Amino acid sequence: MDVVHQDLLLLVLVILAARFGGEIATRVGAPAVMGELVAGVVLGPSLLGLVAPVELIRVLAEIGVVFLLFRAGLETDGHRLLAAGPKAIVVALGGFFGPLVLGYLLCRWAFALPPLGALICAGALTATSVAISVRLLGDLGLIETDAGQIVLGAAVLDDLIGVIALAVLVQMSGGAELSLPGAAKIILFVLVFALLAPIGAQWLMRLVAGLETRSETPGVIPTMVVALVLFFAWAAELFGVPHILGGFAAGLALSRRSYVSQLFPNPVNGPFARRVQQETRPLIQLFSPIFFVLVGLSLDLQAVAWGSGFIWVFSLSLGAVAVLGKFVGAVLLRAPWPQRVLIGMAMVPRAEVALIFAQMGQSAGLLDPPVYAGLIMVIAYTTLLSPFWVRRFRDLCRRTGRAHHLA
Amino acid sequence: MDVVHQDLLLLVLVILAARFGGEIATRVGAPAVMGELVAGVVLGPSLLGLVAPVELIRVLAEIGVVFLLFRAGLETDGHRLLAAGPKAIVVALGGFFGPLVLGYLLCRWAFALPPLGALICAGALTATSVAISVRLLGDLGLIETDAGQIVLGAAVLDDLIGVIALAVLVQMSGGAELSLPGAAKIILFVLVFALLAPIGAQWLMRLVAGLETRSETPGVIPTMVVALVLFFAWAAELFGVPHILGGFAAGLALSRRSYVSQLFPNPVNGPFARRVQQETRPLIQLFSPIFFVLVGLSLDLQAVAWGSGFIWVFSLSLGAVAVLGKFVGAVLLRAPWPQRVLIGMAMVPRAEVALIFAQMGQSAGLLDPPVYAGLIMVIAYTTLLSPFWVRRFRDLCRRTGRAHHLA
Repeated sequence: MDVVHQDLLLLVLVILAARFGGEIATRVGAPAVMGELVAGVVLGPSLLGLVAPVELIRVLAEIGVVFLLFRAGLETDGHRLLAAGPKAIVVALGGFFGPLVLGYLLCRWAFALPPLGALICAGALTATSVAISVRLLGDLGLIETDAGQIVLGAAVLDDLIGVIALAVLVQMSGGAELSLPGAAKIILFVLVFALLAPIGAQWLMRLVAGLETRSETPGVIPTMVVALVLFFAWAAELFGVPHILGGFAAGLALSRRSYVSQLFPNPVNGPFARRVQQETRPLIQLFSPIFFVLVGLSLDLQAVAWGSGFIWVFSLSLGAVAVLGKFVGAVLLRAPWPQRVLIGMAMVPRAEVALIFAQMGQSAGLLDPPVYAGLIMVIAYTTLLSPFWVRRFRDLCRRTGRAHHLA
Repeated sequence: MDVVHQDLLLLVLVILAARFGGEIATRVGAPAVMGELVAGVVLGPSLLGLVAPVELIRVLAEIGVVFLLFRAGLETDGHRLLAAGPKAIVVALGGFFGPLVLGYLLCRWAFALPPLGALICAGALTATSVAISVRLLGDLGLIETDAGQIVLGAAVLDDLIGVIALAVLVQMSGGAELSLPGAAKIILFVLVFALLAPIGAQWLMRLVAGLETRSETPGVIPTMVVALVLFFAWAAELFGVPHILGGFAAGLALSRRSYVSQLFPNPVNGPFARRVQQETRPLIQLFSPIFFVLVGLSLDLQAVAWGSGFIWVFSLSLGAVAVLGKFVGAVLLRAPWPQRVLIGMAMVPRAEVALIFAQMGQSAGLLDPPVYAGLIMVIAYTTLLSPFWVRRFRDLCRRTGRAHHLA
């Protein structure tokens, strides 16, 4: 009882700090996620040492990250992907392989990281943050432009490929050897799960929708959807796939515009899907910040040798690769140069999925404290840089009469 | 990671079983709470032995019961209390002291329970379940009658007194001796907390409402209200009062019709209070069934000697006291006899607060397994009996031409 009691206070502290950090971050123009991360750094061993990542916090953060991926699946928009078409695919593939290859080579050869550690660092750079890109382009009034639509399509695709890459990596990190047939088998498994799980989840969701209309006891949606999401998270690990992919699959199943609803013409109906979105929102809003605070809590900035130079050289060179890598796809496009540059810039922000990569790599023991700290710094650079320079670039184009290239 | 993983499956099982039990219960005309309790009995050591009350389940149940009391506070309706007036107060006081005194005497003298155990058993019988009474009277079309209004007012008051009595009992169970000055000090403390905490909570809630209008980051209400409720739960224990009273106080603070909003003319505005109710509902619906499943999980019906006779004599005689005790107030009223009988009958159902009493007594080691099982059986009797006999009585009055006495 007394342990529970003290853990409740820690939970209150975490929730309040996340909110406070998020509020301050948005005031200064940064994404709320960065503020939540910093809140964790402040509460954790880096600064105050007030909050230890106790079991309760870790489980709730775990549930939070599964919910987060559930929402990402829920918001995956197949129509937008199709509409943005081949150009988005070029940008997405470039934006995936660019940072992956460049990041891996840099980590392996310049910093002599072990293969899996290098893959985690490189993989973390592959997923553009859809949430931040949408916010960014929306704030600058660029979302309806061709460039905006290409960025959104590519960001969604990169998130999708990123989650699958993460699934593959986490699986590989469990095995002993890094063999090509082993990796191929894992990729196959993950792809099969990613394709089949949403179909199974959609089928179950129809049962829930049926129950909801007939039930006289309120609360069908929050209880049954949470049970479904957590069940898929559990089932994913049973199939040898990380649990976040289970949450993602459950989200795709409910998304009104994912490939699942393309394949099956009469899915769970619209009003029900909207109610699911509405009634699970408070749960997602409550749990997911806990995950980002945990990322900050598991950072120990005091353990980093700030004077040695490694942390600076590592984070700045990896940061440069993270930025350059995202331009690979944009440069390959056939488009006016200002448009290519804008697309490259808008693809740079990393956040949620990258932090999940980092956190999983750290908790699997694949990232040393300075590498982990450096990777988080890279994620922070890319997230904080983008709003700033995209705005500058748009204003430059307007002043020099090239604004029509962005339309 | 692996422990977390298996606990998630237990959590899914608990959520699904609670829903399944609740659905079946409402189909056969019983309250959902009874179905959730039975679900816990089935999953627990009594029957299948599938789910152990692991740390995660216990913490979430703890949060669930705090949320439950938060909602009870939120729904406390001061206007209704005032409107029902002195008659409701007579019924409430009779319905509190009747079962308390009769139950205590029975447990002490007929069954030789220790003083605190007897007080827990008797205390559990004091709180009429507002939720079940409202549902019952609503279903039978009696809610707008004089009798209905008196029952509702008295039930709210009994819940309030019950929670405070529970607070006092839990505090006393921590102390070494059962002395009158000690008990008086505890009662004073609890009353001061019950009066002052809602005022503090309301003040904090105004800050939250202010933040909500200015924030650009979504999710203010779910995060801040949960933080506030859990903080008050923690603060309650700090002041030597059980944590559920903290949740109740936070709820009273937000109730648009509690004494707090009577005292302070311009509280948190109406639309905000409505949104709080709306956005916390999924959280309450998700967490609170976990508590009732836990009550079932902590019952071990296999440990009860069913052949010894004690369990039957104890539960049936205590059940009789539970019913009779609730008639004390009704009989004292100046009203036509059919109305007195109806009021007495409608005051009988116990559920949430009674189960909280039982669970707290059990986890504090104050109730032996057979006494705990017997007490749960009494709660089940009173809950299952009421819908049945109130309907019979109404029909009898109609057939014998006495229906006007009920109007």
